Amino acid sequence: MADRLMEGIRVLDFTDFLAGPYLGMYFADMGADVIKIENCKTGNFTRNARPKDPNTGISMYWNNLNRGKRCVAIDLKTPEGKEIFAELVKSADVLIENNRPGVMDRLGFGWEACNEMNPRLIYASISGFGQTGRNAYKPGYDLIAQAQGGAMSVTGWPDGEATRSGLAVGDMFGALNAGVGICASLYKRELTGKGNRIDVALVDSIVSAMEAKIMTYFNENHKIYGRWGNKYSASSPYDSFYAKDTTFVIASGTDKHWGLLCDAMGHPEYKEDPRFCDTETRKKNDKYLREVIHAWTADKTAAECVEIIDKAGVPAARIYNVEDVVTDPGIAIDREMIVKVKAPAAHPEAGEDGELTVVGNPIKMPLTPMQYGQAAGDIGADNTEILKELGFTDEQLADFREKKVIN
Amino acid sequence: MADRLMEGIRVLDFTDFLAGPYLGMYFADMGADVIKIENCKTGNFTRNARPKDPNTGISMYWNNLNRGKRCVAIDLKTPEGKEIFAELVKSADVLIENNRPGVMDRLGFGWEACNEMNPRLIYASISGFGQTGRNAYKPGYDLIAQAQGGAMSVTGWPDGEATRSGLAVGDMFGALNAGVGICASLYKRELTGKGNRIDVALVDSIVSAMEAKIMTYFNENHKIYGRWGNKYSASSPYDSFYAKDTTFVIASGTDKHWGLLCDAMGHPEYKEDPRFCDTETRKKNDKYLREVIHAWTADKTAAECVEIIDKAGVPAARIYNVEDVVTDPGIAIDREMIVKVKAPAAHPEAGEDGELTVVGNPIKMPLTPMQYGQAAGDIGADNTEILKELGFTDEQLADFREKKVIN
Repeated sequence: MADRLMEGIRVLDFTDFLAGPYLGMYFADMGADVIKIENCKTGNFTRNARPKDPNTGISMYWNNLNRGKRCVAIDLKTPEGKEIFAELVKSADVLIENNRPGVMDRLGFGWEACNEMNPRLIYASISGFGQTGRNAYKPGYDLIAQAQGGAMSVTGWPDGEATRSGLAVGDMFGALNAGVGICASLYKRELTGKGNRIDVALVDSIVSAMEAKIMTYFNENHKIYGRWGNKYSASSPYDSFYAKDTTFVIASGTDKHWGLLCDAMGHPEYKEDPRFCDTETRKKNDKYLREVIHAWTADKTAAECVEIIDKAGVPAARIYNVEDVVTDPGIAIDREMIVKVKAPAAHPEAGEDGELTVVGNPIKMPLTPMQYGQAAGDIGADNTEILKELGFTDEQLADFREKKVIN
Repeated sequence: MADRLMEGIRVLDFTDFLAGPYLGMYFADMGADVIKIENCKTGNFTRNARPKDPNTGISMYWNNLNRGKRCVAIDLKTPEGKEIFAELVKSADVLIENNRPGVMDRLGFGWEACNEMNPRLIYASISGFGQTGRNAYKPGYDLIAQAQGGAMSVTGWPDGEATRSGLAVGDMFGALNAGVGICASLYKRELTGKGNRIDVALVDSIVSAMEAKIMTYFNENHKIYGRWGNKYSASSPYDSFYAKDTTFVIASGTDKHWGLLCDAMGHPEYKEDPRFCDTETRKKNDKYLREVIHAWTADKTAAECVEIIDKAGVPAARIYNVEDVVTDPGIAIDREMIVKVKAPAAHPEAGEDGELTVVGNPIKMPLTPMQYGQAAGDIGADNTEILKELGFTDEQLADFREKKVIN
């Protein structure tokens, strides 16, 4: 059995929606004991989010993100609920939360309180605008971060509207930034014995990813980078193009790529064409460049174009839809990006043959591979097991249940 | 002086373009000794990428990503260059490379060779399609990953073309995934003494971020998720809207948010309106929903709308352009997302008052804050210093320079 990177690490995943659960999923995939903490009355909001498994109605939005986690559910407004949460904090290595700033303090489990209970705890908060600064109070979902971080202003077509990325890039960047901070802090804790405080904002995460666009503002007379459609500003041809059936992309990064593309199109003379001799010239003559490429693509399908260009050693790709992605064996099978998890114990009829299909983890580490285990259970499914591990007795559990502190 | 998370960790950053340098930047910000390794003849391709500092012409695309690194430059085709590279490998904790799969092996510095030289080395490769599988040979830039990972098919307008995100989301997700893998492996190495192999593909990173869209395919009769413009499929109203001057976004996640929005618009009766009573109904009656919202926004600016909705406690935001982002004190100052680094020693006239403006790191850790130090130098600027640290003598350095092994 291969090593698992996070064996022995306990992560409290007190999160809902997308960013927090996505990050908790990484720790579960890496072998941590990830405990999902939910409100015992309603559970996570996204337990009701579509799509749902047709056999059982359980949310596959939720199950993809929460595979491999154990589930505890408590009423945090009761003193007993707080006692349970405190025991969880004392037992844990990492806590991830994505509540609005201030909520954790009001519950009695802000950073200072938790650090006092467990100085080794690494405490990570993911929020729209961060824990500090004049915007901290503002609620922020992914769409807000894509808007206020600047991403929408640079996505879309020059003559069209500001456009969000179809991926929840604010949530995802936020999750992964918190992940880097947590793992770096776990490393450091081995040297110092001390926990850490991590504060990641979705907006900041988008701003960081704006990189060269912000540099352009400061170094080119406050020029405001706009929307370029599918073109990039630094290379050419680096764009989508029409074939006879649909569009595809060519990503020629260098003059060498352009030369290979000219040969592949059967027009070596374009290499010497003064309109196309270097990147800057090709960018300036984009209209003509697109004409000569489209003259070649017009009688071919996108797949044919990509095959020819790929053989020539120039980066090109079809624009995959979801079905293309999940049925490409190079992605789904070779790279294990479509994988199965065991159905939850309480829902053996879920999925197919007792297995649910989920998306694989993108970090491939052959010596310490990701492992996907079992889908998570219902709200509080592991209450008894986890509370007994924490030292609570059967009598206490019965009392908690009677008082509706747990379900 | 605050602790720095990566103090004492040496990272070899043998990368170009965006993903690898962006990740190396994180380690430099966290206090690692990051050594940028370049070809001594040409240096990084992106040292020529715009935008450029107007005073010196140095690339600020490059300098944003490479602040805080030291620069070594060698000719890896020579035996002496290989000897220097081997000494660097032996001295390092982490190596990041983003060459096309196979290149490192041909140079003699693939994973197996480096692992033999230094069993504690954590060796991370970032590539378009990964190190394994039938697509491994294919070159892949960000545009290719956005196309073949499925992101473009879900970005843009229902009646429009597949659209790339204006951010290089393939590169960024790839960088951060490798970052999680590296930091997790640094933690684990403290327990085992062993290095690790990390293989991240831009395409896989995009596929993972497709999450619910892929779940929809497998659980709703192979339905192919398309382009939704700025709407989300799970909430309503959660979209961009027109004000009298420009567009802005509202991200109402729940029925409670909708109720607060109705009150803020002065139309509490919409709360009882059967067209709008819950999320599914509002989604179905989107046309009417947009009509009633636009009736209210028509005589207000986007800023006025956002101010009113924000006060009501409902997430809303202006769609910031780059200038809005960098001049918002809540982002630039309070969250330290616009910061300064010292100009490189060889270019004291760079920037303003000896400082260059760059983008702050989005991981905020008050106990172990990011620190930005100095802009990196020219190609091979730290050759002498680094090679002497490795134990090479003045005589050897002179010999290397004569043979053009280093610059």
